[in-house]
Formats: sequence, C-alpha cells, structure tokens
Amino acid sequence: MLDKEFKEKIEALLGTDRSSFAPEDLIAYSYDANTEKRAMPEGVVLPESVAEVSAILKLANEYEVPVTPRGGASGYTGGVVPVEGGIIMAMDRFNKILEIDRDNFLAIVEPGVITKTLQEEVDKIGLMYPPDPASTAFSTIGGNIAENSGGLRAVKYGVTKNYVMGLEVVLPTGEVVRTGSKCIKDVVGYNLTELFVGSEGTLGVITKAVIKIVPKPESVRTMTATFRTLEDAAEAVKAIFATGVRPSTLEFLDRISVEVVERAIHFGARPEEGALLLIEVDGPDIALDGDVANIEAACKKCGVITFRKARTEEEREELWKARRALSFAVCEISEDWEDDDISVPISRIPQMIRKLDEIAARHDIIIYNFGHYGDGNIHVGMTTGKSGRPFPMAAKDEVVAAAVSLEGRIAAEHGIGCVKVHNLHWNIDEPTLRMMRSFKKLLDPKGILNPGKVMPKE
Amino acid sequence: MLDKEFKEKIEALLGTDRSSFAPEDLIAYSYDANTEKRAMPEGVVLPESVAEVSAILKLANEYEVPVTPRGGASGYTGGVVPVEGGIIMAMDRFNKILEIDRDNFLAIVEPGVITKTLQEEVDKIGLMYPPDPASTAFSTIGGNIAENSGGLRAVKYGVTKNYVMGLEVVLPTGEVVRTGSKCIKDVVGYNLTELFVGSEGTLGVITKAVIKIVPKPESVRTMTATFRTLEDAAEAVKAIFATGVRPSTLEFLDRISVEVVERAIHFGARPEEGALLLIEVDGPDIALDGDVANIEAACKKCGVITFRKARTEEEREELWKARRALSFAVCEISEDWEDDDISVPISRIPQMIRKLDEIAARHDIIIYNFGHYGDGNIHVGMTTGKSGRPFPMAAKDEVVAAAVSLEGRIAAEHGIGCVKVHNLHWNIDEPTLRMMRSFKKLLDPKGILNPGKVMPKE
Repeated sequence: MLDKEFKEKIEALLGTDRSSFAPEDLIAYSYDANTEKRAMPEGVVLPESVAEVSAILKLANEYEVPVTPRGGASGYTGGVVPVEGGIIMAMDRFNKILEIDRDNFLAIVEPGVITKTLQEEVDKIGLMYPPDPASTAFSTIGGNIAENSGGLRAVKYGVTKNYVMGLEVVLPTGEVVRTGSKCIKDVVGYNLTELFVGSEGTLGVITKAVIKIVPKPESVRTMTATFRTLEDAAEAVKAIFATGVRPSTLEFLDRISVEVVERAIHFGARPEEGALLLIEVDGPDIALDGDVANIEAACKKCGVITFRKARTEEEREELWKARRALSFAVCEISEDWEDDDISVPISRIPQMIRKLDEIAARHDIIIYNFGHYGDGNIHVGMTTGKSGRPFPMAAKDEVVAAAVSLEGRIAAEHGIGCVKVHNLHWNIDEPTLRMMRSFKKLLDPKGILNPGKVMPKE
Repeated sequence: MLDKEFKEKIEALLGTDRSSFAPEDLIAYSYDANTEKRAMPEGVVLPESVAEVSAILKLANEYEVPVTPRGGASGYTGGVVPVEGGIIMAMDRFNKILEIDRDNFLAIVEPGVITKTLQEEVDKIGLMYPPDPASTAFSTIGGNIAENSGGLRAVKYGVTKNYVMGLEVVLPTGEVVRTGSKCIKDVVGYNLTELFVGSEGTLGVITKAVIKIVPKPESVRTMTATFRTLEDAAEAVKAIFATGVRPSTLEFLDRISVEVVERAIHFGARPEEGALLLIEVDGPDIALDGDVANIEAACKKCGVITFRKARTEEEREELWKARRALSFAVCEISEDWEDDDISVPISRIPQMIRKLDEIAARHDIIIYNFGHYGDGNIHVGMTTGKSGRPFPMAAKDEVVAAAVSLEGRIAAEHGIGCVKVHNLHWNIDEPTLRMMRSFKKLLDPKGILNPGKVMPKE
C-alpha cells in the first residue's frame, strides 16, 4: 500500500492529470506485449522533465516505493511488469527528437520517441538508424536502449548498444549523470554509457540519448533460398560468408515453420523444402549484382532447391511474406504457444536445432524455429498444438539449457526481465553475479528501481 | 618501500626469473612511449596464469602495494608509468592467440598479443581486425582494450570497444570475472565488458578477450586531395559524406603540417596547398571506382587543387608518404615538441583549427595539426621551433579547453593517464565523477590498481 503522504507529494508535483492511483487507470500498466506474468501497479506517473524524474525517484527512495520505468511496453520478458507493485513511470511525455545533426551523423532524442519515428525522420535526409526490432512501430528508443534491442540487421549493423553514443540518466537515488558525448572517439573517464544499455531499467531512468546514425545504403537486394535440410542451409550460410559478402539480413525458417506458413498462406513451398533462408544485401547498387551472384553460387553449391530474387519492391514484399506470416500462421496449428529467444555462435545453429528436435520429441510438443540466422539468434516457438494439453513448462528451461551447452546465451534480444531470472546463473558465474549485485546496490541502495528483474533476490 | 615479506611471497610465487626488485631490472619499466613523467617501480612481476594474477593482486591488497598493469608500453599519457611506485605487472607472458574461429568471426586472445600479430593472423584467412592504432606493431591487444584505442579506420569501422565481445578480468581484489560471450546478440546481465574497455587498467587486469573480427574488404583505393584552406577541405568532407560514401580512412594535414613535411621529404606540395586529405575507401572492388568518382567530384566542387589516385601498391605508398612522414619531419623545425589528442564533432574541425591558430599566435608557438578528420580526432603538435624557448605549458590546457568549448573531448584515443587528470572535470560533471569514483572504490577498496590515473585524488 502506498503511503498517503507519498501520493499527496506526487500529486503536488505532477498534478492529477499526470499521476493517478485509481485502479481503473492502472490496469493498462499491468502487462507487456507477451509475458504471462501480470501485476497491478499502485500508481502511475508521467513526468515531463529530468527534474521531475529526479524528484519522483527521490520521493520513491524516501518512501521506499518500487518504480518501474516504462516505454512502449512491447517487451517479451516482463521488463515493465511491476512485479513488486509501486508506481509505473511512463516515459510517454519524453517524446521529442531534439536534434538531427546530419553533419555529425547523430541524433539527440528523448527516450519516449517511437523507434520507427526516428527511422523515418533520418530516412528523409538519406540516413539510417539500423537497429530494427520487430516492435519498431510501437517500441521506444528508451525501451530499445534499456533492453539492448537487436532485430533483423544485426548481422551487418550490430545492435542498439552500437548506436548509443551518450546518455543522460537519472540514477535511482535521483542524481543525474551524463555519459558519453557527440564525439566518435571519446576515451574520457569510464565507459558508463554501455552499463545502462541493456540494464533493463534497473540502474537508472534514461532521459536523453545521443544516437549514432549512418548513411543509408544506396540499394537493397532481397533473395530467398530453400533447402532440403537445415544442415544444407547452414552449409550455404558458411559458403556465403566465405565469399566475403556480409548480408544485412539473414533470416531463417526451419522445416515446421515452413510447413506452418505454407498451410496458412500457401506461398508455394514444396514438401521437400525443410529450411528457408531470407537474405538481403545492401550497399552501393553497382556492387549488389555481384553479391547476389556470390550468394546464389554459394547456395547452389549446397543443394539449394529454389533460389528467388526480387526485382521489384512488390517482389521483395512477396519474399518477405513467409517470414512475416509466421507470427500469425502459428494460429493455424494452435491457440496457444510459448516462445523463447536464445543465442548461439552461428556455427552451432544446426546442433541447436537438433537439440530442439530432441526436446520436442521428449515432451511430445511441436517446436518451430525461426529468426536471425546471421547473428545466431533463434526464436523458438513451442506448442502442444490443438491437443488441448497444457504446455510442459520444463521444456522451456531445456531449450535455454541447450543453448548454454553450445556456448550460447539464455537471452539474445528480449532481455531477462522477470521470466529468466532463474536461468541467469547458467550464463553468469558467482563472482560476476556478485559484481553485478554490488553495482546495483551501489546505485540503488534501497532497491526501488524495477525490482525483481535481471537478477535473483539474494 | 616494499615490505620484505611481500617480496618473499612474490618470489615464492613466481621465482626470481619472473619477478625482480633490482633497480637495474626496473629502469625499463619506468616510462612509456611519450610521457615526460617517469617513475621508478619498486618491483616487476611477470605472471603466466590467471591464478598468478589473482594471487599477486591478493598479496598487493594485503600489503597495500600499488600495481600497474603493463602491455606494450606504447601509450602517450603515462598509463603504465607507476606514479605511486609499487610493482609493474608486465603481461608479456600472456602472448597467445588461443583460437581463431573463422565460422563465428571471432578470436580468443591473451592480452599480451601484439595487435599487428593478430591482424596478420586473421588476414591470412581473409579476415580483418579493424582497429589500427599507429602503435599496432608494438602495442598489445590488452593495452588497446585498456585504452580503447582508435586509429585510422575508426570513421568506418569504429574503435577497439566495438570489437571486444567478452573479457576475463581479474578484479583488484583478486576475484576473476567473466563478461560477455561468443554470441553477437547477448543481453544476459549487465554489460560489464565495456566498463573495463577504456578503464586504463584501473578497474581490473584483463587476462583473456573474445575479439570480433570481420570479413576483409576485397579492395582498397587510396586518394589524396589538396586544398587552399582547411575550410575548403571541410566543405569537401561534407560533400563526400553527402554522397553516401563512407571512407574507411579520412586523414588530414593542416597548412603547417603540409609545409613541414614538404620541407622534409619534398613530396611536391605547392605553396598554395594549405590542407591535405588522405582518403581511402574499401569494399567490393566493383563499387570502388564509383566511390572514387564520387569523392573526386565532391572535392572538385570544393576547390580541390590536386587530386591524386593510387593505381598500384607503390603509388599507394607514395600517397601515404606525407601522412607518415609527419612524425619525423617535425624534427626539421624543432628538437622538442608537445602533442595532444583531442576530439570534436567533425563539423567543428574548422572552428577548432581557428582556435588553435589563435592559441599559437597568443603564445608565439608553432601549432601543426593532423589526424583523423573523419572521426573528429585531431592530433595537435606544438613547438617553440628552434628558438630554444621553453614551451609555454599553459598552451596545452588552452588546446584542451578549446576542444571542450566546441562540444569536444579532452582525450580521443590516447587516454587520460596521469597527464590529463586535471582536465577531467571539463568533460565529466560532479555527479558523473562521483559515480566513477564509487565504482573504483567498490572494485578496488584499497586503491592499489594503477593509482593516480584517470581521476584526480579525492
């Protein structure tokens, strides 16, 4: 229960239009895009300035009220679910692009800016903000930074952390720190920027970010290639990389994913097609025919069944169809499914898929895999199909364990949140966890900021 | 004075062939490549294993002995100078490339590996490790990581931090932590890797690193362009970037640098040439003619005087000559000089150069500027020429202050070390410095690891 005095002080600070403690206003802040776990907050605040964020956090410390920062709430691991109650700090009002500096290839943005908005604004002047999580139309830059979001272009362009040059952050105690700069080369003091990137809102509230942008590539070419087996596709990927070409996108669907999509949208997959690669290259137009030829040759060496190239924007959309359809196509085989997000070194993907097949057989479930082949990030879909059987939750941990056994990571781009806390020690050893804990304690002595996330309780 | 017991324990641990307290063995560990400040250590240790590094640090804590980790000692800001005495921890024996994993584009290396060795090894299999500080032939990967080294290719490829995927680090208290992984996408726990990158050996001793490598570009093209003024060159740079081409290298010499080099090696500069750009593009061969044409057109729009293109490796060397000659050409005008390393947003370079001209006039000194135009990193050479006058040290701080006044940084790629500690607060505000200090204190409660570096004493 929130202290009455705390509520009064919050209302005095923000007024009743930017704060609420009424249950009917709070329901919308009790969940994210995908996590089963829900929890009702006891209040919501919508600060508009750094000073307000700082004042709220100072009050929260004084009254020991948990604070959960919230961007677009498009997360998959409960990062914004207020599992220990307290208040939601919704960053909606921090929604301005403050500056786009074309000469210096950077933008200064507030955290509540929708990622797609930034992408569109810089696109207008021939620039590109490369990170593109699937949620780009509704997730925010602040959320992307907090989660270190990835997306489809990571194989060539990296992830969000590679584009954060500097931050303004309000620490859990209310102090405001400024990290990084507008300079490409900057070795002044400790690199604090990246500590906040991916810290899932547990170490500070981001109030401003200096974002690196890059020249937009002149052209993009899109291809799909299908193979009998994922092993063949894996050989093709190796052969593609061996040519020196670095695709900007290298996605895959495994056998069941191909079947599921075929059943839903009839995109023309043949029964023998057990793996699909969706490949894009970008860069100077004149170089791309060569890249496409290299990729085609690499695929042909590895038993490609069909190799399709898009010649028009329409054909490009056609090739993307299968990959895009998967998220709804799965409704054809089930009303309910679980999914996971893991990472392995790319050469381990075929082994990982075999392990996933074993898990599926062991639990008599359907596992379909897709995702970002080029950066080793597999999205694992799991379901008991239309059987009505409850999902065997043990399978989820087995999936994560399989990744770990192949030098992989328990989370690739969806965060730890509150759903993978119990797996953390599979990747992080005791001394390293102690170091993480000591940082958290140092910055957030009362543990008010997004408690219950990232690390298990001591 | 080192405790007798401490020395005995170190000798018992390492033997006398890997530890010494004899002044004649220690002189070589009293300086780096460029810093005037020298200091004699009281001992030197050469550990061979993580366990030894840990044991030494535990002993150093027990006896409160300062420990200064040392790689190739090619630094410019005294990072390896043991300003508070104690022992040098020379990482020479950690000199193995443990693994080059071609399929996953990574290498696992010990910190004492010479950067050039790694570059050559990966080059043999068609890959590239992009960071290339000028010291690449004698600096180590560990030193590069500790300093977050930059180099010539940062404009396109970024700096060292962009290539460190994971680290094994011994904390000042002797605990061993492991950060990051072999996975491109990894959001597991706090991003501790980057906190150590650029921490100048004050937060931990790196004992292993997972290094990202990339496909080697098929071809490189080299050009030089000269202009009447740096303002013209600046316009050309803007025009080059506007074409969408991103050079891999974009170096410059200002008027005095051109004159100095011309006097030393007679490379054919005409008196009216007041700025020189050295430009390289790399990528698929077929795209590079277009890039070169774009760059040439951009330069021509901006009053280029001469535009030269290398057609052979020999011609390439010829074009590089002027840039390479600068470091020794300066001997023609002086026996002694100071230099500095600052960073500004690239659009600010012309303003910065004007400010430097003013500083030169004010102190009646010669200032010549060169460096990495494409990433805003200016190397500022300063001398009183052959006048014999002592150098007015106040000018150095004025140079740094000028950078700060243009949203620049007091250090771009040479670190803070012990020489810029007094400038730190020009870039880092009080709350952020407090955060840095609290991290240092947390990890190194007795302040034994590389004391006197990065931050001023409290």
